[in-house]
Order: sequence, then C-alpha cells, then structure tokens
Amino acid sequence: MQQRLEESLALVANEAVEVVCAGRTDTGVHASGQVVHFDTLSERSERGWLLGANSSLPDDINVTWARPVDDEFHARFSATARSYRYCILNRLERSALHRDRAWWVYQPLDVDAMHEAAQRLLGRHNFSAFRAAGCQAATADREILSIAMQRQGDWLRLDVTANAFLQHMVRNIVGTLATVGHGEKPGQWVSEVLESRDRKVAGIAAPSHGLTLVSVEYPASFGIPGAVNYDVPGAGC
Amino acid sequence: MQQRLEESLALVANEAVEVVCAGRTDTGVHASGQVVHFDTLSERSERGWLLGANSSLPDDINVTWARPVDDEFHARFSATARSYRYCILNRLERSALHRDRAWWVYQPLDVDAMHEAAQRLLGRHNFSAFRAAGCQAATADREILSIAMQRQGDWLRLDVTANAFLQHMVRNIVGTLATVGHGEKPGQWVSEVLESRDRKVAGIAAPSHGLTLVSVEYPASFGIPGAVNYDVPGAGC
Repeated sequence: MQQRLEESLALVANEAVEVVCAGRTDTGVHASGQVVHFDTLSERSERGWLLGANSSLPDDINVTWARPVDDEFHARFSATARSYRYCILNRLERSALHRDRAWWVYQPLDVDAMHEAAQRLLGRHNFSAFRAAGCQAATADREILSIAMQRQGDWLRLDVTANAFLQHMVRNIVGTLATVGHGEKPGQWVSEVLESRDRKVAGIAAPSHGLTLVSVEYPASFGIPGAVNYDVPGAGC
Repeated sequence: MQQRLEESLALVANEAVEVVCAGRTDTGVHASGQVVHFDTLSERSERGWLLGANSSLPDDINVTWARPVDDEFHARFSATARSYRYCILNRLERSALHRDRAWWVYQPLDVDAMHEAAQRLLGRHNFSAFRAAGCQAATADREILSIAMQRQGDWLRLDVTANAFLQHMVRNIVGTLATVGHGEKPGQWVSEVLESRDRKVAGIAAPSHGLTLVSVEYPASFGIPGAVNYDVPGAGC
C-alpha cells in the first residue's frame, strides 16, 4: 500500500514522496481510516492531491481526503489512539459475498463469554502474549482504552481502541477470545494468557481478512478529520 | 456460476446434475437470494447437500440452504416475483473497499428526481426500451410491482421488484434514471423512453457490479424460504 501511494503522490508532486502511516495494515488487512503524512515542496489544491493520487492508484487503494497540516504533525507519533474492527461470520454456511471481509467460523460462538473475557485486557498491560514473533516494537506495553464484542444475527464484531498496537495484536486477541467463545477455555484463561507474556500460550491468530483499521485519533488542535464513516451506512461489519 | 454449481452437486449426488436458476445473473452481477432446483435420484440430508456442495465450490459461490421440494416446483416458472438491488456510491472519492459492489458516480445525483422518475415505470408495460440487444425473451411485457430509490449519506440504492426481468433491464433502468439524476433530462423523459420501445433512446447501462439479485418469491405452498437476509445486518448496500 505504502509504495503504491508514494508512487501516485510522486506523480502529483512531480518529486519523490515518502509517506508515514499512522497504523500498520499487514497483508490482507483492510483500512477505512488510515492516515498518512508526507513532506513536499509542491503546492497543489486539496482536490488536486485527492483526485491526482486516486487517478493513478490501483483500484484497491484510494485517498478520501487531503489537507495541509502543521509542521508539528506526525501521522504516527502524533496519534493518541487507533481503533480496529474485527468481523466474524458465525454460521454453518460460508458467504461468498463477504469472503474477503469476515472470518467464517461455523462452530457456535458465545459472544457474551467473549465480551466478558475481552474486558480482562482493558487498561495498560504488557501484551507480549499477543505479539507476533517478528514484532519490532521496543516495548510490549500498550493501553487498551475500550474493547467490546457484539453480535447482530450471524455477525460478530470486535471493536477495540488502544493507544497503539503490537504486530498481530488484534488478530491474536480475536483468536484467543474465539477459544473462549467455543467453550474450550473459561474467561479467566484470558487473564492467565495475558499474565504469561508468552505468545505460545495464547490462541491462534485470527485471519487477516477480518480486520479493518477504522480510525486514528489526534489532538483536536491538528484539525484532522475524525472517524468519518466511509463504510456503507449502518453496516454491521 | 451454474456450471460450477452443477459440478459440485454432481460430486455430492454421485451422478450428473442439471440445475435450473430462478433469475439470471450476468457476469459481474451478485446474488444473495438466487434459487435453483434440480432433479436427482440420490438421497442426501439437507445438511449433506449444503456442506457437500460448499466444500467443492469456489470461494465466490456458496449454497446457504437446501431442501426437498414438490415435483411441481420449478425455480424459474414457479417464481412469482424477483427483487434486485442496485447500489451507487455518489461522492467525489472512489472507494477501494466497495469497488466490486457499487457503481461510483462522482457527479451529484438528485435522488428525489430519480425516485419520482422511477415511478413512471410502475405497472405492466412493454419494456423494449430497457432490453439488451441480445435478449431472447419471447415478449418484452413485464410488470414492475415496486420500485424505489433512496439515499443514505453517500449511498444511493434502487430496490425494484417485478414479476420477471428482461436481460439488462435493471442496469438500463439505473442508467436512464442516472441521466435524470444528473439533471440532463426531466422525469417526463423516462415516460418517453418507455413509450418509445427503442433501446437507443434510453441511457447507458449501469455497470454490472452494482447489481444484486436479492430475492425470489414463490407461492407459499412450496415452503421456499423467503428473502432471508444473508447480508450484513443493516447494510445500506
């Protein structure tokens, strides 16, 4: 994503562009609210950056807004929180129409048990147990500000906001909560996994295609658009 | 779709299977409520047909239910009505996330004008003006039972139910309504197009990827499941 965006912006800027992303999106992960910044000497209108970039981006990436920001602004370091959503389709039959946007789990999941277990992760903790082996972060301390699981019919979704996330952290949390949802482990086990700080203790990583970076928060003084909902109105996932 | 489904069902049935579809879905058109029937000498449980077929279908096709039906039932000829939905994303920026499910129209569309114009198509008419050149139907007489356009934020959708449809009929209707939505033609023009019975008079065909066959109606005596919503709950499109 980053490379294609840099190439497209370079065409608009008529000079090389390096972008800095707010949050990581591994292969297969979606983003409806990614934020990036870049420095440039070129002057273009907001509409010029937007339409110019979109005209040369591949059809699976697009820009939804662009605006000049203060020199102090940094897409990654100025961010105070990131929010991800994870979608699960929980029924016997798979879905061709939603195959790229939700994890299909055909065994029944107890969403109340998953929600209760998720609350054990709230607050500031060392999340080493939910961190990918290759994660490069200097520390595993992160603060989960809110985490909630809910069901609408056959659809389950996890909404989680943290100051920042470790590599694969949401996917490892979802896989671990699914173990509770299947009734294989009690909610208390999630506390034990967290305290173990051992990735081998946690559940499998849920697949990447159910995950979406939905918004990034910044101090209001930067004037960055909030979590504009660019999804279909009222969509559960 | 039909061929892949027949191949998968043949594996379950252990004999050749020919399916009959309720409604046509041209290349690129989606279906959340297609209904098919087939004759077979094999006896399998409903679950056996469902899971067996899904296990060998490609990931862009899946079965959501299966049940035995009366010999009188015919997926196409027993159907009393079909419903299609057409989705338009109406904003300056395109959407990578919804690129395969909605027609992106960046010029503003007047949804009220489009809805009013659409009402001119209600009832039984000769729809030759909205029929593909290659359409094989014996007659162009069809009855539109309901047709409505609505907007939710940047999303427009057309919901249309008819006893049956001609080839490309919904796409040609949407393209024609878009001409009204752009303000290029008044609503009255849609009546003129209808009365002309001339395909060359109507607007362009809207692209196939915005169209979904959402349900097929049968007499209640057949016990066919109604328009079960297998979409994401509350989704606008």
